[in-house]
Amino acid sequence: MQNTNFVSTMSTCGQKEADKVPEPTLRRLPWYLSNIKLMKERGEHFVSSTQISKEINIDASQIAKDLSYVNISGRTRVGYNIDALIDVLEEFLGFTNMHKAFLFGVGSLGGALLRDSGLHHFGLEIVAAFDINPDLVGKDLNGIPIFHSSEFEAKMKEYDVNIGVLTVPINIAQEITDKMVDGGIKAVWNFTPFRIRVPENIVVQNTSLYAHLAVMFNRLNFNEIK
Amino acid sequence: MQNTNFVSTMSTCGQKEADKVPEPTLRRLPWYLSNIKLMKERGEHFVSSTQISKEINIDASQIAKDLSYVNISGRTRVGYNIDALIDVLEEFLGFTNMHKAFLFGVGSLGGALLRDSGLHHFGLEIVAAFDINPDLVGKDLNGIPIFHSSEFEAKMKEYDVNIGVLTVPINIAQEITDKMVDGGIKAVWNFTPFRIRVPENIVVQNTSLYAHLAVMFNRLNFNEIK
Repeated sequence: MQNTNFVSTMSTCGQKEADKVPEPTLRRLPWYLSNIKLMKERGEHFVSSTQISKEINIDASQIAKDLSYVNISGRTRVGYNIDALIDVLEEFLGFTNMHKAFLFGVGSLGGALLRDSGLHHFGLEIVAAFDINPDLVGKDLNGIPIFHSSEFEAKMKEYDVNIGVLTVPINIAQEITDKMVDGGIKAVWNFTPFRIRVPENIVVQNTSLYAHLAVMFNRLNFNEIK
Repeated sequence: MQNTNFVSTMSTCGQKEADKVPEPTLRRLPWYLSNIKLMKERGEHFVSSTQISKEINIDASQIAKDLSYVNISGRTRVGYNIDALIDVLEEFLGFTNMHKAFLFGVGSLGGALLRDSGLHHFGLEIVAAFDINPDLVGKDLNGIPIFHSSEFEAKMKEYDVNIGVLTVPINIAQEITDKMVDGGIKAVWNFTPFRIRVPENIVVQNTSLYAHLAVMFNRLNFNEIK
């Protein structure tokens, strides 16, 4: 049942969205998008991959290849229409469709994400959160209700959700993931530093701030002593 | 001047920390760390790469190779002492040394990060934030003072900081980055979807939540229709 809006989403987005786009491409496209938005602010109407290349120091042929996944064609010597490219990129990246999500674990990071209204501008709406802390259950944060974890199955029937944001302590990360998947969650945005296991058809996106910190600290140390 | 504590850090961490560790290794090590912590909770005293492998579904030889960057040796048939491995990994990853940082841009995400005390447990202490919003300047958030952006150079002299967290709007991301680097910041943790340019000796760690969302949405769509 919760698949309905995704199927209908597809029919409006063009056939290209069905392609398995390489992850590096998907990570670069938002860079192009933010750059193109700035060019638009500066009053530009058309943009070529060569122009984007100069701005962000990525090979123009790579940019053209990445943009070939998106359903838009540029004109020789003129480039892409900026307004059209912004619209198509935002739609392609899923930022214009609101994807509803539940958040699990209203600790320090979970609470921070509930307060980050910015996610909303990029297509993610956290509609409810779950925790077992009696000081939190029944309250709301930034207008988002916090339910007891035991209410998850019931709330899955009430809300049209297929994404779960995981911000629980590592010792229950797997257990909560299993419950999410059993309840019908199709994608887990995992903020824990724990490597969760899921069935093959479930999407996992790992965003460990702590792993990124580790990389940054190491590079910083390396620079300091080289 | 702000290099002093990094140099002294190095001398206590063993020569291995100076190696340019591959980024995939640095991203996997926190997974091992969180798993090993759980094993310790379960009462284990020793752990082998084979055991870690079973838990997190990564090849044991890869784990052994990753751990070879860390200054610890296991014993044949017994494995690594868990307590020692936890200590060495946390130190190696930089989580036990407090790294001071400034945050630039107290918007929705910036405010959320100021409230996330969890970063503290992984070695990052945001000691001050900068913004130009008169409703924010002079206040503090979660005990962290917010200064006017024009005070940055003065505060660099006051605090011992070499990391800048970038959470400004994309249209000023490059300008603020340039100011940070001019002021002596050595590493930029970039949360904007903008690809910033920095001199070669400056570390950039990109953590675009929105790029991660784009990957997750695409994979979800792909699964729904395949």
